[in-house]
Amino acid sequence: MADGQKKNVLIVGGGAVGAIAALNLEVGGLASVTVVLRSNFNAVNEGGYTIESCDHGVLKSWKPSHVRNEVPDIEKENLPPYDYIILTTKNIPDVPPSISSLISPALTSLNKHTTLVLIQNGLNIEKPFLKSHPQTPVLSGVSLIGSAEIKPGVIVQDDRDRLLIGAFHNPQLEPAIGSQKAKEFVEIYGKGGKTECLFESDVLTSRWRKLVYNACLNPICAITGLDTGRIRLADGGLEGLVRPAMREIVEAARKVGVELVDEVVDFMIGVDPLELYLAPSMLADVRKGNFIEYENLLGEPLREGKAVGVAMPTLQVLYNIAKAIQWRTKEERGLIKIPPKKNAMTN
Amino acid sequence: MADGQKKNVLIVGGGAVGAIAALNLEVGGLASVTVVLRSNFNAVNEGGYTIESCDHGVLKSWKPSHVRNEVPDIEKENLPPYDYIILTTKNIPDVPPSISSLISPALTSLNKHTTLVLIQNGLNIEKPFLKSHPQTPVLSGVSLIGSAEIKPGVIVQDDRDRLLIGAFHNPQLEPAIGSQKAKEFVEIYGKGGKTECLFESDVLTSRWRKLVYNACLNPICAITGLDTGRIRLADGGLEGLVRPAMREIVEAARKVGVELVDEVVDFMIGVDPLELYLAPSMLADVRKGNFIEYENLLGEPLREGKAVGVAMPTLQVLYNIAKAIQWRTKEERGLIKIPPKKNAMTN
Repeated sequence: MADGQKKNVLIVGGGAVGAIAALNLEVGGLASVTVVLRSNFNAVNEGGYTIESCDHGVLKSWKPSHVRNEVPDIEKENLPPYDYIILTTKNIPDVPPSISSLISPALTSLNKHTTLVLIQNGLNIEKPFLKSHPQTPVLSGVSLIGSAEIKPGVIVQDDRDRLLIGAFHNPQLEPAIGSQKAKEFVEIYGKGGKTECLFESDVLTSRWRKLVYNACLNPICAITGLDTGRIRLADGGLEGLVRPAMREIVEAARKVGVELVDEVVDFMIGVDPLELYLAPSMLADVRKGNFIEYENLLGEPLREGKAVGVAMPTLQVLYNIAKAIQWRTKEERGLIKIPPKKNAMTN
Repeated sequence: MADGQKKNVLIVGGGAVGAIAALNLEVGGLASVTVVLRSNFNAVNEGGYTIESCDHGVLKSWKPSHVRNEVPDIEKENLPPYDYIILTTKNIPDVPPSISSLISPALTSLNKHTTLVLIQNGLNIEKPFLKSHPQTPVLSGVSLIGSAEIKPGVIVQDDRDRLLIGAFHNPQLEPAIGSQKAKEFVEIYGKGGKTECLFESDVLTSRWRKLVYNACLNPICAITGLDTGRIRLADGGLEGLVRPAMREIVEAARKVGVELVDEVVDFMIGVDPLELYLAPSMLADVRKGNFIEYENLLGEPLREGKAVGVAMPTLQVLYNIAKAIQWRTKEERGLIKIPPKKNAMTN
């Protein structure tokens, strides 16, 4: 296939997930990939990626077709529209700029050519795009990869890349359009044969299922400072926090029509081997002083569950604590100003 | 009054509260005080206390009658029994040794002379002594002092010492015995005229009232990492966490027969001036990697409230998080052993 026939793909976010997505797409030969990088731009632009991967082996100085340090402005640069724009960044809607404004230079609101692929966690992540880009098909990507960027441009992938792709419901588009784009994307992504990329017609099930981990273990570990191994050993951890929270998610999912089996609770508790003592993303973020993805992972399922009458006492408290922790990070970073401190003795 | 007629008082714990208690008692002239110190023993034994106090002014190199680095064994040392033993240490029943075993060398179980005074927070703190020392009157001390030990032996007291004293109910003693001891203690403690020490016949009311702060703001600040000023400013802080928790305490108190006015919630929210950004004790302890007093401050009122049928969803989650944080500190200090870490790539 000549380069001109390849699909033109933009990946925004070239960290642990985005780099492996770029590699899969390029290896398959059906896509030419541009990756937009931020913190690791200099490292990757100069020396390429170093990738140690259970799917792909060891690669040194690997580069996708193009790397950039900002989202291209396709009108100003007179570029053709992308076939697919894949988002693999963190999704933190409570901290500006919004993701939809971030990608808008590459996706004008009139653009009917491009399909958006959100390889991000949580619920209702498509909603901002249904408003800002109502004519754009938006695909759901649920990634089950185990991958980490151990330093800028150095990726260690120690668990297989499995990706579930389907179309988010868009009331303004024919359902067939999204499904067709999803199936095409599955073909392009899976072509290299190194990965397991599956089409799913019902994207909500895999999203709610992953929330059993992400709305529960993830914030509980972040708040207690314990990794997924230690939280299983700690007093009050499993029976006091993790199981009650997970049962609330299973119950909320059922009430919105997503049937999860009860065994999913034990499965998610054990999904990280205890003795690896893995820090889930929110704990890693809190330790680094980064913002946490608590709104889509915790706030949205909480709101969905409460809207259908499910009591969610554990998630409610976890949510408000996560919100206060996010406020703390905003204040530490100077995004929020507070009244100056007074001295007790001179009061 | 000759020294021989003075009451013989032992204070266990000579930090911010214990040092001012010792000073008050000695200033009044009706007590001869022995203070048992641990972390600050060398500083105080060599140079005495430096005290900057809104009640007493500035004192340099001040010493109580005696200082010791461990609880005296009155039988071995052939000492007369103490009239009062005052406990001003932290109370952490989930970490050995227990306080009752700590003081037992100075208070044999057959001793009918000594009265115990617990200037400590929380509920049911007298219970272990009703078992270990059933014949000993136990007094409740609720301290409303503002005082801190800024370095070993250096005490800054920036808010007046107000102390509420009453007798805990002991089913094996005549009620009059406890009340009489409480009134005597109030006289001795208040004699110096620098403090406000009041007798109260109902000790549960002041304990539950203080829990509106201590079971709520204290763990919420410790868990979110926010001080009492910032928690009032933070998203989700007051309405999401502090007020719901405080209302649960007020409701539990009512159900056990302690009527608190609704205004106590706003009073406790505002009791620390916002712009001082004060860290309550549990937050200070978490920051220092110390154990937290979560069982008596949070666990006991939670259990009491649940036992009388009060729904306590906020306190329940806060309690289990506090428990997990305590486990983390135990593990960090080597009190708990966990399976060794495995390496993901060699699994």
